[in-house]
Amino acid sequence: MNDFRIESTRGELVESVFRVSLVVVDADGRTVAHAGDPSLTTFWRSAAKPFQAMPLVADGGADHFGLGPEELALTCASHSSEPVHLDIVRRFLAKIGCGEGDLACGAHVPLGAAVASEVARQGTTLTPVWSNCSGKHAGMLALARHHGWPIAGYEQTGHPVQERILADVARWTGLTRDRISTGVDGCTTVCFALPLSAMALAYARFGVAEDPAARRLRLAMQAHPLLIAGTGRLCTEIMTTAPAGIIAKIGAEGVYSAALPELGLGVALKVESGEMRAASAALVGAVRQLLERLAPAAVDALAPVGRFDPAPIRNTRDEVTGVLKSAGSLRFR
Amino acid sequence: MNDFRIESTRGELVESVFRVSLVVVDADGRTVAHAGDPSLTTFWRSAAKPFQAMPLVADGGADHFGLGPEELALTCASHSSEPVHLDIVRRFLAKIGCGEGDLACGAHVPLGAAVASEVARQGTTLTPVWSNCSGKHAGMLALARHHGWPIAGYEQTGHPVQERILADVARWTGLTRDRISTGVDGCTTVCFALPLSAMALAYARFGVAEDPAARRLRLAMQAHPLLIAGTGRLCTEIMTTAPAGIIAKIGAEGVYSAALPELGLGVALKVESGEMRAASAALVGAVRQLLERLAPAAVDALAPVGRFDPAPIRNTRDEVTGVLKSAGSLRFR
Repeated sequence: MNDFRIESTRGELVESVFRVSLVVVDADGRTVAHAGDPSLTTFWRSAAKPFQAMPLVADGGADHFGLGPEELALTCASHSSEPVHLDIVRRFLAKIGCGEGDLACGAHVPLGAAVASEVARQGTTLTPVWSNCSGKHAGMLALARHHGWPIAGYEQTGHPVQERILADVARWTGLTRDRISTGVDGCTTVCFALPLSAMALAYARFGVAEDPAARRLRLAMQAHPLLIAGTGRLCTEIMTTAPAGIIAKIGAEGVYSAALPELGLGVALKVESGEMRAASAALVGAVRQLLERLAPAAVDALAPVGRFDPAPIRNTRDEVTGVLKSAGSLRFR
Repeated sequence: MNDFRIESTRGELVESVFRVSLVVVDADGRTVAHAGDPSLTTFWRSAAKPFQAMPLVADGGADHFGLGPEELALTCASHSSEPVHLDIVRRFLAKIGCGEGDLACGAHVPLGAAVASEVARQGTTLTPVWSNCSGKHAGMLALARHHGWPIAGYEQTGHPVQERILADVARWTGLTRDRISTGVDGCTTVCFALPLSAMALAYARFGVAEDPAARRLRLAMQAHPLLIAGTGRLCTEIMTTAPAGIIAKIGAEGVYSAALPELGLGVALKVESGEMRAASAALVGAVRQLLERLAPAAVDALAPVGRFDPAPIRNTRDEVTGVLKSAGSLRFR
């Protein structure tokens, strides 16, 4: 098969294969390229964060509480729990008159490997602010505060915060609300299941939107790539590199979404088996193929994230035993 | 599709899918059931360990060094680095006149979750004996010592230890040596790539073999399930439960092999994407289907490992958001 996919090799042999469904659309919803099933319905997970943050800005909450680009970047982040991330979330909570006890997210081992080692070594007690989603949750609390809605249960289906967010997710994805199903996310709040093509459309629109709320969030993300993820992670590094002005956002279970504003495109992908390493390789591999086809001069800008695809696989003695790499081709229309 | 597979759900939706290739054969190589591609060639990884240990017993090394069932169980283990595992490997090394410095395996985060937390908390320096493969490596060193071969490079292709092991892997799998390709394993030594059907045949034979070396290794594994893996892990728990006298051995990258001696069968499976959690669910799901068909009275013996399939998926607040479970059916001949 020559379908776009991720392979992990050992010596000369392909040892594991990660199938990928992916779609690239423009802001009018026209498909430019795809792999696998472009209409696959799956959970958007954390790649929905910019649209979960949107109502806070659109409804005037960001102005009301004096939230700057750093706090807004954190609302869209799956952060690594680095000190800078925790500091900004704590400042954010203080600005809206909330405390860490108001966050409904549970803590987990930090996504940043160095931070994870450090907290394990120090025996740090991980509180909700350490959740990679704590900025998103702070944004939800801020939305509730701004509208005078109760704080309690802000994370749950049926709460006005979630109703308001669902309306914006529907607006940006071009779906009616009944076509969006929901589940409980890893961080306890609502997550949204919808076709990849609708996710890609939302990102294509987000990348070129002129409306003030979207523009403000987009600029906040582009200005603070380190706040969107963390040191050494792909979202941060590819947005620092910024081929085609890229905005990239990972989601759990092998999901990635991205906007390429200079090309007017949105990308959404899902690794069938949910493997996160494969999602990073898939994003880099797919963006590389897009640029080679549509903006060859921009391909070199991907060099700093080349180590995600192909990514060397090392054993316990640090010998390279194989690579994780994209293979096969996107299908262009 | 009704192909046997593993699914991970969130709410009502299947979020991720793990494709599985699997084959069940008898000791004459007749296929009893399969899923996906039963002739898929992949690396056997740690599921090859009983056959990597076999020459040590067959050539008289186990007797020569006075190795008991505990040391022999460890040669076949992917252990959790619990104190009992480390103690036995250290005793084993002492019996053969080797030290930890002779082990070529590198250390890694222990496979047992409780042990991993503990060593992180204590800042323990992880030395080679902590490798889940340290018993296998001790066995290789013992084989070299027994034959008077040099210790240096015992783990590498071309060393007499590896030549001797390859001969036994070929013998048990019924393959000529040129049909077995090799790679470098996570623990630095040689690993073997071969068709799933050949892996299953080796296990079917191992489960019923009368030859003294195989019988001695098999009894050592069956007598000491805790030494084969560790507390709470599937190999240990299913061998304690022992439906159909099962011997089960996990391998890295989504591999499992098992013998069901009372049914005269061997099983080999590979999760396409290499996901380990999915491999555990696949083994339990497949053994359940086998027993339902061939030995219904033994199905209840699987109850203690039922939590591997379906396995609840919990979020950061410990709420159940979905399950990891086998789906679809094996195809019986």
